[in-house]
Amino acid sequence: MSIARLAIVGGTGPQGRGLALRFAMAGLAVVVGSRERTKGQGVADAMRAKHPGLDVRGDENAAAIADVDVVVLAIAPEGLDATLASLRDGLAGRLVIDVVVPLAFRDGLAEHAPPAGAASAGELVQATLARSRVVGGFKTIPASQLLAVDRPLDGDVLVCSDDAEARTEVAALVARIPSLRAVDAGPMRNARAIEGITALLVNLNRAHRGAHTSIRILGLG
Amino acid sequence: MSIARLAIVGGTGPQGRGLALRFAMAGLAVVVGSRERTKGQGVADAMRAKHPGLDVRGDENAAAIADVDVVVLAIAPEGLDATLASLRDGLAGRLVIDVVVPLAFRDGLAEHAPPAGAASAGELVQATLARSRVVGGFKTIPASQLLAVDRPLDGDVLVCSDDAEARTEVAALVARIPSLRAVDAGPMRNARAIEGITALLVNLNRAHRGAHTSIRILGLG
Repeated sequence: MSIARLAIVGGTGPQGRGLALRFAMAGLAVVVGSRERTKGQGVADAMRAKHPGLDVRGDENAAAIADVDVVVLAIAPEGLDATLASLRDGLAGRLVIDVVVPLAFRDGLAEHAPPAGAASAGELVQATLARSRVVGGFKTIPASQLLAVDRPLDGDVLVCSDDAEARTEVAALVARIPSLRAVDAGPMRNARAIEGITALLVNLNRAHRGAHTSIRILGLG
Repeated sequence: MSIARLAIVGGTGPQGRGLALRFAMAGLAVVVGSRERTKGQGVADAMRAKHPGLDVRGDENAAAIADVDVVVLAIAPEGLDATLASLRDGLAGRLVIDVVVPLAFRDGLAEHAPPAGAASAGELVQATLARSRVVGGFKTIPASQLLAVDRPLDGDVLVCSDDAEARTEVAALVARIPSLRAVDAGPMRNARAIEGITALLVNLNRAHRGAHTSIRILGLG
């Protein structure tokens, strides 16, 4: 399958905007989804104003996913259940990339805070969207890096899914973004460790001045 | 404090042997501790036979820790409670490096399996050894890398502790091992994410032929 059109549900937050930008720069037609159509359009308009020539438009979430090859879920963790319920039918049979990382902050430290009923957001998304092909990805790439287009990206995208073919498709999509490498991270159960990494990276960013951390896997052979 | 002498409690397993080897190669006097004195001595003898000139000897765990500057805990997770209880008084006031990662395997996948009463082995060790200065470290460096002395090590050692000065001391110790970099990973609560990384790396090693993975933190600024 060749991926040409991509929608981002919850595309107006930093992670969603960063991914929209990088995918559009990679030549994809991108739809920025939002609960409010005008908000998605506003983000898309601002992006085109700053980066002329990008194929980006905005729409309401349900409309955004209607006519694309892949849907990225960049929903805030607290809205996950409601958004998944409302989009479940529309996403049936579709390739879905979950980038959600649920974090809690205690005493100034981030920690992974899995949603009720699952050990990770990724596992919850796959369980809820049982008829979709769900792939976890981009969870350890910080929004600050995605949005800083004057600097090259740096890091590995850990791609996990219970559907091996879907992992391969998403890895090929990742490879279209310069400097990012996809690492096949196996079944969705690995999402719990991957989301934990994000908590660690957030804490490193707070403790190390000027840090925008990501990770690289060494020794893959 | 200058660290010259180091003991490894539970030093006869792969992680313990690998660390003993690398620390001894870095010029430290190393004591390989074991529940049985002769077993520790056997490992030390074999190491010296293979690498003449290393300052390595073996002893029973309680004796091994008596006269050293730093103690590495490389205990199997299932023996953690008993060993900590037996060494608690002897380790009071001492610098202790916890390298334990409790994993469970389900359907062929490793997952982080924190001990009862704690979110990570590191947090349990610090809570149990309340009078010691406990630092988590080396949890993402695989034993297979440590033992393969013909190849340079590769990866970051994530150093976490609630004692910032102890983190600095352990980072300086890490820096004595060629090719390893210490990353200050903040308080011990980050051990839960770090131990989760090990589960992920174990799964990557199983899925990617010939892989001996570790991680590097990018973007520290």
